[in-house]
Amino acid sequence: MRQDQQRVDMALERYLPPAVEVPATIHESMRYSLFAGGKRFRPILLLEACRLVGGEARKSLPAAVAMELIHTYSLIHDDLPCMDDASLRRGKPTSHKKYGEAIAVLTGDALLTHAFEVLTREQVAEGVPTEAIVEVVGLIARAAGTMGMVGGQVLDIQHAGTGAGIRPEQLSEIHHRKTGALIVAAVEAGAVLGGATFEQRESLTAYGRNVGLAFQIADDLLDVHGTVETLGKDIAGDVARQKITFPAVFGVEASRQMGVDSLIRATQALEGFGGEAAYLRALAEFVVSRAH
Amino acid sequence: MRQDQQRVDMALERYLPPAVEVPATIHESMRYSLFAGGKRFRPILLLEACRLVGGEARKSLPAAVAMELIHTYSLIHDDLPCMDDASLRRGKPTSHKKYGEAIAVLTGDALLTHAFEVLTREQVAEGVPTEAIVEVVGLIARAAGTMGMVGGQVLDIQHAGTGAGIRPEQLSEIHHRKTGALIVAAVEAGAVLGGATFEQRESLTAYGRNVGLAFQIADDLLDVHGTVETLGKDIAGDVARQKITFPAVFGVEASRQMGVDSLIRATQALEGFGGEAAYLRALAEFVVSRAH
Repeated sequence: MRQDQQRVDMALERYLPPAVEVPATIHESMRYSLFAGGKRFRPILLLEACRLVGGEARKSLPAAVAMELIHTYSLIHDDLPCMDDASLRRGKPTSHKKYGEAIAVLTGDALLTHAFEVLTREQVAEGVPTEAIVEVVGLIARAAGTMGMVGGQVLDIQHAGTGAGIRPEQLSEIHHRKTGALIVAAVEAGAVLGGATFEQRESLTAYGRNVGLAFQIADDLLDVHGTVETLGKDIAGDVARQKITFPAVFGVEASRQMGVDSLIRATQALEGFGGEAAYLRALAEFVVSRAH
Repeated sequence: MRQDQQRVDMALERYLPPAVEVPATIHESMRYSLFAGGKRFRPILLLEACRLVGGEARKSLPAAVAMELIHTYSLIHDDLPCMDDASLRRGKPTSHKKYGEAIAVLTGDALLTHAFEVLTREQVAEGVPTEAIVEVVGLIARAAGTMGMVGGQVLDIQHAGTGAGIRPEQLSEIHHRKTGALIVAAVEAGAVLGGATFEQRESLTAYGRNVGLAFQIADDLLDVHGTVETLGKDIAGDVARQKITFPAVFGVEASRQMGVDSLIRATQALEGFGGEAAYLRALAEFVVSRAH
């Protein structure tokens, strides 16, 4: 996992505009948030999905980098004063605290835009066929848009404060869009770039859906139990803002069980791959174990 | 021109998620800003560049729509309290005045993201070859990012208040990035989609650069002389915020002359196309005439 993280970090550095390029502020602020200690979970999922179906991980590095660019943009915009109003992220001042709100908004915009430049120019440079590029851009854009991540964020804002009144399906739907959609897009993009069969792609999508759910539940549980030191962000922020979370709706124990169930379903989805899928299974376990 | 505007409006409606789709708020707010009376200048440039080099305008409609989505996102984010803090845009309350800041940020994000979905899925549906799609996505992403529009906005923010101290080349550079880059991308994308020769593409790019400059000068002049009624936005906002503008740096008369010079250069760039380029010439004249 560390090796993949390093590979992603090197590719990020390579595919970003040089830090000294004018205007330097924005290239600096892009790097500030990108190299703040992210685990590169989405890129690693993408690389490994590609490998598992027999593709070359090198060719999927641009798409892996694009996932991290999009994920990081979403964190910067979510942290803004008009959204979560967060001061800390991964133990460091958030983008708007460090660079001011205008630059933070623009840094998010720049990261999102740059993702699509990397998805085209750098994938072409790596020799990815244009049919695969177009498919990957389309599925990532859809997952990041109003039917996915942005839509989930809107629903989350609209439901904040309604607390325990929400129906379980609504909660799952919101979290599927907000977190799950991009995770599914990561494994799907890896599958497309690796030349997956229809069945392989279906299995990986099912894995992604369940890992995404497990990931969100783990995150919610961490927010209840974590400290500033372990989380690197304001504690119990979700509780304070009356955000709808799994523990708030189902309680801590039931949420933990739901996380374990998702992990089991994620692992089952990989059965057809046999021993080759050990890494993806370990990644799923890693996600859930964080919350225990 | 009206016919092209209608064609773009119909395509916008067709390529947007249905207004009733959950979360309805964001699909509504996307439409609110998109259908606020924009002139569709960038989409029309794209359609006409495509036609001029012998392409089918129908096939370039998705890219034309994408230009308007990106342009509209940039207006929404520029109007935010942390940027220009504008209350009116085209005579209507700005997105954050109408929907609140969080939804305005997310609406911009959604429009930018949706542009890339339209550029892939809808172009595939129209039968555009994947090589052309990949090229168009790449050049639009570059023009919208830190080397183009977002970079120009950062420079603009950083130079606000320095007023007349700025060097003329710096002013042109800022405006080329902020406004010109996306206009050039529109004609370039049209050229690629229409199957332009290298020379045709070069001519159209030169036209785009000069029209972009003329457009920005005209906009700055309008901001000095306009009223709330003619502009539909707060008057003299740029002056109040000590934004660097052509009239602020060069004076009104010299700026007007620069606009006319750009118009002449834009027209000259089209010479190789002969009478066929009458529409593009008229568009350039229309841009400059707004400021007189």
